[in-house]
Amino acid sequence: MVTARSKVSGFAKRVWRIGADDPRKAAHGFKVGLALVLVSVFYYTRPLYDGVGGAAMWAIMTVVVVFEYTVGGSVYKCFNRAVATASAGVLALGVHWVADKSGELEPFILSGSLFLLAAAATFSRFIPTVKARFDYGVTIFILTYSLVAVSGYRVDELAALAQQRLSTIAIGIFMCLGVCVLICPVWSGQELHRLTVSNMKKLAGAIEGCVDVYFAEPATPAQAKSDGYKCVLNSKASEDAQANLARWEPAHGKFGFRHPYSHYAKIGAAMRGCAYCVEALNSCVVAEAQAPEHVKQLLREVCARVGAQCARVLREASRSVETMTSSRTLDFAVADMNTAVHELQGDMRSLPSMLAVKLSETSLMDMMPLFTVASLLVEISTRIE
Amino acid sequence: MVTARSKVSGFAKRVWRIGADDPRKAAHGFKVGLALVLVSVFYYTRPLYDGVGGAAMWAIMTVVVVFEYTVGGSVYKCFNRAVATASAGVLALGVHWVADKSGELEPFILSGSLFLLAAAATFSRFIPTVKARFDYGVTIFILTYSLVAVSGYRVDELAALAQQRLSTIAIGIFMCLGVCVLICPVWSGQELHRLTVSNMKKLAGAIEGCVDVYFAEPATPAQAKSDGYKCVLNSKASEDAQANLARWEPAHGKFGFRHPYSHYAKIGAAMRGCAYCVEALNSCVVAEAQAPEHVKQLLREVCARVGAQCARVLREASRSVETMTSSRTLDFAVADMNTAVHELQGDMRSLPSMLAVKLSETSLMDMMPLFTVASLLVEISTRIE
Repeated sequence: MVTARSKVSGFAKRVWRIGADDPRKAAHGFKVGLALVLVSVFYYTRPLYDGVGGAAMWAIMTVVVVFEYTVGGSVYKCFNRAVATASAGVLALGVHWVADKSGELEPFILSGSLFLLAAAATFSRFIPTVKARFDYGVTIFILTYSLVAVSGYRVDELAALAQQRLSTIAIGIFMCLGVCVLICPVWSGQELHRLTVSNMKKLAGAIEGCVDVYFAEPATPAQAKSDGYKCVLNSKASEDAQANLARWEPAHGKFGFRHPYSHYAKIGAAMRGCAYCVEALNSCVVAEAQAPEHVKQLLREVCARVGAQCARVLREASRSVETMTSSRTLDFAVADMNTAVHELQGDMRSLPSMLAVKLSETSLMDMMPLFTVASLLVEISTRIE
Repeated sequence: MVTARSKVSGFAKRVWRIGADDPRKAAHGFKVGLALVLVSVFYYTRPLYDGVGGAAMWAIMTVVVVFEYTVGGSVYKCFNRAVATASAGVLALGVHWVADKSGELEPFILSGSLFLLAAAATFSRFIPTVKARFDYGVTIFILTYSLVAVSGYRVDELAALAQQRLSTIAIGIFMCLGVCVLICPVWSGQELHRLTVSNMKKLAGAIEGCVDVYFAEPATPAQAKSDGYKCVLNSKASEDAQANLARWEPAHGKFGFRHPYSHYAKIGAAMRGCAYCVEALNSCVVAEAQAPEHVKQLLREVCARVGAQCARVLREASRSVETMTSSRTLDFAVADMNTAVHELQGDMRSLPSMLAVKLSETSLMDMMPLFTVASLLVEISTRIE
C-alpha cells in the first residue's frame, strides 16, 4: 500500500515538474481544449448541425488530428490535410465519373484504381523528401480517395458532399490555426534557435569542466557540469524535426519567411563533431591510467587557458547566434584561442617527458574540430547577419 | 527541357533504387492496397453497407491509419485505437447520461468535460512513457470523446451507434493485422536485430579501415570503408523507435514474447561510445599534422594487430548476437585483443621518440571503450544465450 502510494505521488510529482518546467506545455493542453470547445459550440449554435454522421464530425476530427504543439507542425498538417483532401477528392470524382460511364466494369475500375493508388501512395512515403514534407498528406490522400471511391453515391450527390466536407475541414483548419497562432504560440524556429544556443553554452561548459576536472588537485568527480555535451550528442533527431517544421512557418519576430534554417543543421553537425571530441576527452579524464601529478602540473596552465578560450569562443558564437549579429568580439576570441593553441603546441614540443605529451595530445586533438567549428561559426554568423 | 527531363529521370532512378534495394518496401505498398480492397469488397458485398456516412467508413479509415510498415507498428496502433475508442466511448456515454439527467446544465457539462478532458489528455502526451506507448491512443481518445460528446443523439441511440462502430473498427483491425502478419511480415524485432548486427560489422570495418589508411605508405584516401561508423553515430533514433515497437510484437521465429529488447539499446549505446572514438581516430587520420614516416613504421605492425583484433572481437560479437548464442570464440578473441593491446602499451613505453607516442596514443585511447564494449558484449551475449 505504502509503496503504491509513494509510486503514485512520485509519478504525480514528475508530471507536475513537466508542466512547471515548461508552462507552455500545460498551455498547449488548454489550447486544444479551447479549440475543440469553440468548434463544438460553433456547431451547436448553427442549424447545419445534424449529428455525428454529418458535417460537424469533420471539423472536430480536423481540429483533433491537426493541432500540434508548434505552429510549424500545425501549419504542416493543415496544409497537407487541405491539399490532400482536395486533390484526392477531385481525382476520385473523375475516376467515379469514368467508372459510371463504363457500365458493368464499374466495381473493377474502382477497386483496381484504389489498389494501385494506395500501393503507389504508400510506397511514395519511403522517398525521403515525401516522408519529410508530405507524410501526413499521403495518409489523408489514401483515406479520402478510398472513402469516395467505395461510396455508392452518384457523381452529382458526391460533388455536393465533397464541397460540404471541404468547407467543414476549412472551418476546422481556421479555428485550429487561429487558436494556435493567437494564444501563446510556440514557434518551431524559435525552439530550434533556443536549442542551438543552449547546446553551444552546454558544450562550452563541458569543455571547461573537463579540463578543470582533469587538472584538479584531488580527484573530485564533478561530473554535473561536464555532462552537458551528452545532450548535444543526442540532439540530431529533434533538431532535424524542428528545422523541418520551421520551414512551414510564416515570418514571425526576427525570423523572416526564408530564414536560413538549414544553417542550424550545419551548426548542429559541427557541434556534434565537437561533442565527439569532448566525449573522447572525457574518457581520458575518467580513465584509470593517469599521468603522474608533477607531469600534469607542467601543462596545467596552458591547457586551462586553451580550454577557457575554447569555451569563450563558443559562448561568443552562441551570443552571436542568439542576437543574429556577427560581432567583432567573436573574431578576437577566435584569434585568442589560436594563440593559446599555438602556445600549447610549443609547450608540448619543449617538454621532454613522454607522458606529458600523452595528456596534452588529448587537448590538441580536441582543438582541431574546434577550429573547424569556430571558422564555420564565423561564416554562419556573418551570413545570418 | 533537357535538364527537366534529366531531373525527372534522376528522380525516377532514385525511387526505383529505393524499391530495388528493399523489395519489402514495394511489397508494403501492395499490402496496403490489398487490405483496402479487401475491406471495400467486404462492404460492397454485404447489405449493411450504407454509403460514406455509415459504418464502412470506419473500417476503411481504420485500415488506412493503422497499417504500418512493421508488425509492431500495426499492433501498437491497433491496440491503441481499440482501447482508446472503447474507453472514450464508455466515458462519453456516462457523461452524456449524467448531462441528460441534469436538464438545463447539459451543454455546460458537455462542453466543460470536453475542455477538461482534452486539455488533460493533450498534456499527458508530454509524459515520456505515455508519449512512447500511447501517443496515438490519446489522439483517438480525444477524437472519440469529442465526437460522442457533441453529438445530439439520445443515450439509447448512442449505445447502438457505439456498438456498431466498435464492430466495424474491429473488422478493420482484423483485416489489417491479417494482411500485415500473413503476407511478407516485417518484424520490428528482426529489423532491430539486423540493424545492430550490421552496425557492429560496419564498426569493425571502420576500425580496420582507419588503421590501414593511417599506416598506408602513400596517403591514399580510402574513405569508403572507414566511413561506416557514421551510420552508427546516427542510429540512435531509429534503434529507439524499433525497440519501442518491437515490444508490441507477439513471439515470432527466434524472438520470444519477452525478448530482451532493452539489451539492444545497451549494445547500441556501447557501439556509439565506440563510434565516437573511431571518429576521434579518424580525425587524426585526416589531420594535416602527421608524424614522420619512419616513426609510423615503428608502431605499424603492433597497431595493425590491435586494429585487426578489435575488428575480430566485434565480428565475433556480431556473429554471437546474430545467432543468439554465446560462443567461446568470442572469449578467445577478447583475450587475444587484450594481449595485443598490452603489446602496444609495452612498445609505446619502450619507444624513445616523442612523436611516436603521439600516434599510438590515439590507438590506445580508442582501445579503452573497446574494452568496455567487449566486456559488455560478452555479458550480453551470455544473457541472450
